[in-house]
Amino acid sequence: MSDPFFHPVSGFDLPRFAGVPTFMRLPHVDPDNPRFGDVDVGIIGVPWDSGTTNRAGARHGPRQLRDMSTMIRAQNGATGVRPFEVLNCADLGDVPPNPIDIMDSMNRITAFYDRVLAAGITPLTAGGDHLSSLPILRSLGKDAPLGMIHFDSHTDLFDSYFGGSKYTHGTPFRRAVEEGLLDPERVIQIGIRGSAYDNEDLDFAAAVGIRIVRIEEFFARGLDDVMAEALDIVGTAPTYVSYDIDFVDPTFAPGTGTPEVGGPNGFQALQVARLLKDVNIRGADLVEVSPPFDASGGTAFLGVSIMFEILCAMAGK
Amino acid sequence: MSDPFFHPVSGFDLPRFAGVPTFMRLPHVDPDNPRFGDVDVGIIGVPWDSGTTNRAGARHGPRQLRDMSTMIRAQNGATGVRPFEVLNCADLGDVPPNPIDIMDSMNRITAFYDRVLAAGITPLTAGGDHLSSLPILRSLGKDAPLGMIHFDSHTDLFDSYFGGSKYTHGTPFRRAVEEGLLDPERVIQIGIRGSAYDNEDLDFAAAVGIRIVRIEEFFARGLDDVMAEALDIVGTAPTYVSYDIDFVDPTFAPGTGTPEVGGPNGFQALQVARLLKDVNIRGADLVEVSPPFDASGGTAFLGVSIMFEILCAMAGK
Amino acid sequence: MSDPFFHPVSGFDLPRFAGVPTFMRLPHVDPDNPRFGDVDVGIIGVPWDSGTTNRAGARHGPRQLRDMSTMIRAQNGATGVRPFEVLNCADLGDVPPNPIDIMDSMNRITAFYDRVLAAGITPLTAGGDHLSSLPILRSLGKDAPLGMIHFDSHTDLFDSYFGGSKYTHGTPFRRAVEEGLLDPERVIQIGIRGSAYDNEDLDFAAAVGIRIVRIEEFFARGLDDVMAEALDIVGTAPTYVSYDIDFVDPTFAPGTGTPEVGGPNGFQALQVARLLKDVNIRGADLVEVSPPFDASGGTAFLGVSIMFEILCAMAGK
Amino acid sequence: MSDPFFHPVSGFDLPRFAGVPTFMRLPHVDPDNPRFGDVDVGIIGVPWDSGTTNRAGARHGPRQLRDMSTMIRAQNGATGVRPFEVLNCADLGDVPPNPIDIMDSMNRITAFYDRVLAAGITPLTAGGDHLSSLPILRSLGKDAPLGMIHFDSHTDLFDSYFGGSKYTHGTPFRRAVEEGLLDPERVIQIGIRGSAYDNEDLDFAAAVGIRIVRIEEFFARGLDDVMAEALDIVGTAPTYVSYDIDFVDPTFAPGTGTPEVGGPNGFQALQVARLLKDVNIRGADLVEVSPPFDASGGTAFLGVSIMFEILCAMAGK
Amino acid sequence: MSDPFFHPVSGFDLPRFAGVPTFMRLPHVDPDNPRFGDVDVGIIGVPWDSGTTNRAGARHGPRQLRDMSTMIRAQNGATGVRPFEVLNCADLGDVPPNPIDIMDSMNRITAFYDRVLAAGITPLTAGGDHLSSLPILRSLGKDAPLGMIHFDSHTDLFDSYFGGSKYTHGTPFRRAVEEGLLDPERVIQIGIRGSAYDNEDLDFAAAVGIRIVRIEEFFARGLDDVMAEALDIVGTAPTYVSYDIDFVDPTFAPGTGTPEVGGPNGFQALQVARLLKDVNIRGADLVEVSPPFDASGGTAFLGVSIMFEILCAMAGK
Amino acid sequence: MSDPFFHPVSGFDLPRFAGVPTFMRLPHVDPDNPRFGDVDVGIIGVPWDSGTTNRAGARHGPRQLRDMSTMIRAQNGATGVRPFEVLNCADLGDVPPNPIDIMDSMNRITAFYDRVLAAGITPLTAGGDHLSSLPILRSLGKDAPLGMIHFDSHTDLFDSYFGGSKYTHGTPFRRAVEEGLLDPERVIQIGIRGSAYDNEDLDFAAAVGIRIVRIEEFFARGLDDVMAEALDIVGTAPTYVSYDIDFVDPTFAPGTGTPEVGGPNGFQALQVARLLKDVNIRGADLVEVSPPFDASGGTAFLGVSIMFEILCAMAGK
Repeated sequence: MSDPFFHPVSGFDLPRFAGVPTFMRLPHVDPDNPRFGDVDVGIIGVPWDSGTTNRAGARHGPRQLRDMSTMIRAQNGATGVRPFEVLNCADLGDVPPNPIDIMDSMNRITAFYDRVLAAGITPLTAGGDHLSSLPILRSLGKDAPLGMIHFDSHTDLFDSYFGGSKYTHGTPFRRAVEEGLLDPERVIQIGIRGSAYDNEDLDFAAAVGIRIVRIEEFFARGLDDVMAEALDIVGTAPTYVSYDIDFVDPTFAPGTGTPEVGGPNGFQALQVARLLKDVNIRGADLVEVSPPFDASGGTAFLGVSIMFEILCAMAGK
Repeated sequence: MSDPFFHPVSGFDLPRFAGVPTFMRLPHVDPDNPRFGDVDVGIIGVPWDSGTTNRAGARHGPRQLRDMSTMIRAQNGATGVRPFEVLNCADLGDVPPNPIDIMDSMNRITAFYDRVLAAGITPLTAGGDHLSSLPILRSLGKDAPLGMIHFDSHTDLFDSYFGGSKYTHGTPFRRAVEEGLLDPERVIQIGIRGSAYDNEDLDFAAAVGIRIVRIEEFFARGLDDVMAEALDIVGTAPTYVSYDIDFVDPTFAPGTGTPEVGGPNGFQALQVARLLKDVNIRGADLVEVSPPFDASGGTAFLGVSIMFEILCAMAGK
Repeated sequence: MSDPFFHPVSGFDLPRFAGVPTFMRLPHVDPDNPRFGDVDVGIIGVPWDSGTTNRAGARHGPRQLRDMSTMIRAQNGATGVRPFEVLNCADLGDVPPNPIDIMDSMNRITAFYDRVLAAGITPLTAGGDHLSSLPILRSLGKDAPLGMIHFDSHTDLFDSYFGGSKYTHGTPFRRAVEEGLLDPERVIQIGIRGSAYDNEDLDFAAAVGIRIVRIEEFFARGLDDVMAEALDIVGTAPTYVSYDIDFVDPTFAPGTGTPEVGGPNGFQALQVARLLKDVNIRGADLVEVSPPFDASGGTAFLGVSIMFEILCAMAGK
Repeated sequence: MSDPFFHPVSGFDLPRFAGVPTFMRLPHVDPDNPRFGDVDVGIIGVPWDSGTTNRAGARHGPRQLRDMSTMIRAQNGATGVRPFEVLNCADLGDVPPNPIDIMDSMNRITAFYDRVLAAGITPLTAGGDHLSSLPILRSLGKDAPLGMIHFDSHTDLFDSYFGGSKYTHGTPFRRAVEEGLLDPERVIQIGIRGSAYDNEDLDFAAAVGIRIVRIEEFFARGLDDVMAEALDIVGTAPTYVSYDIDFVDPTFAPGTGTPEVGGPNGFQALQVARLLKDVNIRGADLVEVSPPFDASGGTAFLGVSIMFEILCAMAGK
Repeated sequence: MSDPFFHPVSGFDLPRFAGVPTFMRLPHVDPDNPRFGDVDVGIIGVPWDSGTTNRAGARHGPRQLRDMSTMIRAQNGATGVRPFEVLNCADLGDVPPNPIDIMDSMNRITAFYDRVLAAGITPLTAGGDHLSSLPILRSLGKDAPLGMIHFDSHTDLFDSYFGGSKYTHGTPFRRAVEEGLLDPERVIQIGIRGSAYDNEDLDFAAAVGIRIVRIEEFFARGLDDVMAEALDIVGTAPTYVSYDIDFVDPTFAPGTGTPEVGGPNGFQALQVARLLKDVNIRGADLVEVSPPFDASGGTAFLGVSIMFEILCAMAGK
Repeated sequence: MSDPFFHPVSGFDLPRFAGVPTFMRLPHVDPDNPRFGDVDVGIIGVPWDSGTTNRAGARHGPRQLRDMSTMIRAQNGATGVRPFEVLNCADLGDVPPNPIDIMDSMNRITAFYDRVLAAGITPLTAGGDHLSSLPILRSLGKDAPLGMIHFDSHTDLFDSYFGGSKYTHGTPFRRAVEEGLLDPERVIQIGIRGSAYDNEDLDFAAAVGIRIVRIEEFFARGLDDVMAEALDIVGTAPTYVSYDIDFVDPTFAPGTGTPEVGGPNGFQALQVARLLKDVNIRGADLVEVSPPFDASGGTAFLGVSIMFEILCAMAGK
């Protein structure tokens, strides 16, 4: 059982529109807080979008995700899991990025996650654009390469953009494989779709053994079958879960920078996360929520609902 | 055949963007109008949201539903039913609530529906938050408990909020069962989902015999099967239909106060209403449309499309 | 004193967000209504924008103006006038336009206003684009040319568009002068500004004696001085007031098709209308409110506030 | 292989948010351009909505479709087709309509397409409202009646509106059949739904042999089966493809004038277009995108994604 | 000099879009926090709008005001005051209201402010609707009646609504005078305008000696002159400042429930607050910011800019 | 007289909502176009916001400014200047930035402007964030330091951000002075306001002789007086005009990343630009329009209206 210090504020005590909005109404425990060492799962914001090649805005993601997260209650309606009673959960605050300097920002992020790992905390990240995953993996994968279940409409396996820029939100997993942070044979990418520049990313995936499930296959086989394959691929070894909100159909998640028509609906978006409960999750992220493209917050509400499912998967093991 | 006095204005005579917006372009016949006694089905607005525990706004529902209802034409495309030629339909206006006083408002609503029933009119209500259903049922169910088919993502069966408040939009059907207005063994709730505080509502439902179909079951069995069960449960006795717009997926119906990710789409939202045609409908409501959360009116347009299906179900018997 | 039948519904009896939205919550009295002959001032919607050369949408103006007009109360705060107690006011409904046929629509509008005039009613119109003024003037000015105080950022005095089209929202007053409906020497246009194609309109104005007050002059002299001149120009003979919402700065009134930067603010927008109280107003319109460009309704709220000032000017004589 | 002159600008060379927005970042080649004769497929805007009987705004469609089309890349992710390398594609600009004169506008449109056809170009049109299809067919179908695959929620087969207006966006295909531009026995309409005034359109369809697939049938049989029938109906003779964006569910495509609840989702919207690859496409249009009802551009993004699928179908033969 | 514990986080250390959003990036110090006793000025949210007679939404005010407050920096540009270095400032969190029970909520608010006062903290409140001021004054004015400078477009001096409801956002200062919490001869209300039901409020004001400055007088005399009178009226005795955001023109502050056209602009909105620096401020509030009517947050940004000016006035004495 | 090749398309020939949107409907003449050498004034987009320290989005500025610029006609209404008949004007397209690399982007911008200058073209830039001005000045000011009239709410004279980042949109003019591109004694900054971190920028300005006119002084003296001083400071030597849209009040220009309450209105925003006609303008920019924060385009419409005034000032000499 968890420590009541880490229980979220109930909507019966303080209405859900009220209060300082921390993630899921959890206590705000930054790394200098004396309770930091007692946290099991830490929710961390990475308000950073300097890797974005097209429409920026994901830097505002953590703020809006916190705001909408106050709609989340204590218990998973579908599974009955009550994660906050199983794990000590906390809002660890945001990593302070340098919006002007990509390399400096990546170093800051890796350093923050090093502290999180040193404290034995499993990180659940709210991005930020997808380049965020690279500096996180530099911390989580530094000792041994991780497997990864990756939900996205893009592979993010390109080599470079704009004449040689190596660090963009289209390249993080190319880099992560090259740096030995991911074991490509234990990586599966689900939901890939949309128009493409060329096949450079697919060729790389094929060469190193990454499994790609395009959206047409996803719909044809059904999500249970695809997820069974995913669990088989990553096995029982430590695994990272990376969930790009643009995996979901852009009508359900318009607030993102690079939408692609024709993805899963909201129910399916939750269901795939729910099926992660037997994965050995070393860390997870939900990235690319971009509030300027969805002022109403519907995308962020879906995003935190997914984060809650991932948290329940962590708690339900 | 209906009286032409009660026919809606055609879009061929007056374009649909024009005119004073009554419900479905019907005549406005308030209780003091000499034609009040000739009405078969009366559409009534209940612009009231004082029972809302989270995000208010449903008080604006009737206005926006009237506005969008001018998009509705004379004939059901799928079934061929022309309800306005079968039944004398009218817009009965809005019940005047007291936004500052819950008890006063409930009394006003019950009194209004008592007049409607005395005139032999079947009420079709545009809410308002879900607490509206309670004072309506106090009129419709006063002689004998009704059955109910209830579409929603929440059970609204809680006992109280905020340290003892008994009358909120999360409690109406708990009260209605306690007051003998509903026969719980003839009640089915469809679409329940989302995170929960606890199981208090489910325990109550189980204790009194209310049937709950969670969304996972709904999708797994398919809507035809679930609706067949619903018709079996309510049987041929008088039945109330209560349709909370948050039954529908929030991407299809963002304009509501307490959305829950992962519900039915627009086609399914209509289809379940279409399948009510063999129900003995004593009254029906469509509640929780909250325009401040969907300025574009898409939610209200879906809402009136559902209301039209319910009206056709009433006419198609 | 007015007949209580014509009093608006009070917000103390029915909250302002409730009820079927007629103009200013007045009774809906269409020309076939037995009380039609008792009306002093009739508010009429002209939901028509077929004369629009650029961005359409004013066809939706009357609907949104009715909606926002429920914010208006009984008494002018600045002047103390209570117009609904002085004059029998009513919502006469909308003129049914033919959105596909300009000539047919203009004939329908003129015919409607002929009935209004025959009943001795002073019309206060909610447009519609500015071409609406022409068929109205064909009714009001048919016996003798009227004077006009015209608030606008455009003169609407052009000859034709797109290679010869004579009837657009840029030409109504050229036509009205040519047809003898307006006495150009008793016409003043206030607020003219923005970039121009050429000087054709100004040359016409100069040739026939129309007085134009550009916005630079308006701000330099102050509105009291300009309005004094306006009253002097129109004198005591019958006068039409035409108020294009794009007279107001587009930040205050974004919901319009052809905005021009740098106009009066909201206070000034009301103040010029307030100063019409000694004008012999034969009819008035408020045109070019285009809801698709201001979903929030702020433009319409300003528009009905101006209409209320004009109504008070009519009542305050 | 296509001429590199006709290749779109790559997002690697110029980020996708940058540059003058032509359709799919293609060269702008108007009819007076010396390269006009080298174009294989020309994308043409018809910024015109004078046939709209309800909510206008489709005149703004081409502008927003161009804007969102910069999100499209070089290769179809699902099929691997690279259309710009197969066909010389270009943005031919917009047909200049006369917003005040329907007959003049139709003549202008037909004249423009006559030039396009004379140059041997296959036109892919971005509307505009659905009346646009009529003057286009007057050019494409003048020598011999065409077959048509028509995606829509409405049949657009009515005779007239508002007391005799023959040219509206609800009548183009009635006129086209009457004028011998379409062979009704080779016409199929898919997705029909929503409330109706009467059965006049259905009776006409039955009389002349047009096949109508209502949305209920579409969902019941599945899209592969329906599309197989469609291909069978039109056969190998020249065929027009007309795609009204309101075919798609209004939650996925809110930016349109006459939405109807309960249509296909985004994935299905693309999939039906993808299945056109064996059709002998003489021309195609995507109409009724109305930006004032979807300021965010999601509808236009879906629209251009559909246009890209149609283009790939043209290239993939 | 203030304690560095109470300094806000600098935008140079953590970008302003990052971090858990407390008011002005101050530490969150709730009443149970050991540093509570060291606070000089406490910013408090009252997320409550149960007194709203028209359009609700102010319950969401504190959340959005916190969000936008991260745009505020350390120093007043106009006056050079650095309030956070002069006073120990903190975010004291939100008072937990009971959205279903007005009396319970008022008791909770008064109890919270009693704790604040007992700790010697000067409260700066972010509402909430204007009824919030009453329970606050029941704490602040319990020992001796306060003076008040009140910026608003309404007097909020009515007796009751809807047939006798005494506690609404239109009645707080009537109640406060009756309860002896305010000294009416030391009360001035500035900016009053808009249409009215009747003169009941003005008659009350005249009877008890409240000074009302209508907007026409405000603009005619200029704000310096009016504010000089205001300071003269309240003198040097303890004074409450109540700032309703609808004092400001609705184009500058659309996010409010009861806007009135024709108020001060943003510069004037700040300037009147800046001129409070010689007032003996016992407490202050900024109320009626209603985010559902301004999703973009412009109203809240103006609101927190006003709160910062009031804070600087408190610090600049 | 200008060459008709460079005349914009008239709204009488092609309605203003139609056509490929180039700046002010001018021909698109990129540097490789044979007519490049004939251009007098070139309008250039710099779609780049990598220097933004807070809310990004100005990368989308040129696109939306082009879109709204189609509202501009041929003649200045206030001054009668017809700039397109005086000067050969063209849309030179966008500089291709590298969104991932600040240094690379600055080099690309400077190289582009070197070509523009080599062709004898006066550049009028549509940003982009304010860091854009630095690489432009590196081209324009490379031979001799320029004077500058700078409209803004911020000085942009800071030394560095986030622990040493030297190139942000808060530092361009500090760098430009240090690099000898601007003559600080011929620089005036007008409109400065808002909260501040500290006085580092003001101290630098004082040390090097830059004149700062805060907004309070601007309003107190009036714009004519301030602009007279500005013209006196820059004299007759070559001068750069830099116009940050956040100079304008955020209610008039919400679409910007770092708004500050209390600035000039739309009329004043145009008027200050109109008064530049006797300045020796070597180049000018309008920066910081950020469409994600104003989807309606009102800010961009104001922005292009200002650009048109600057162009008329260039033409009116």
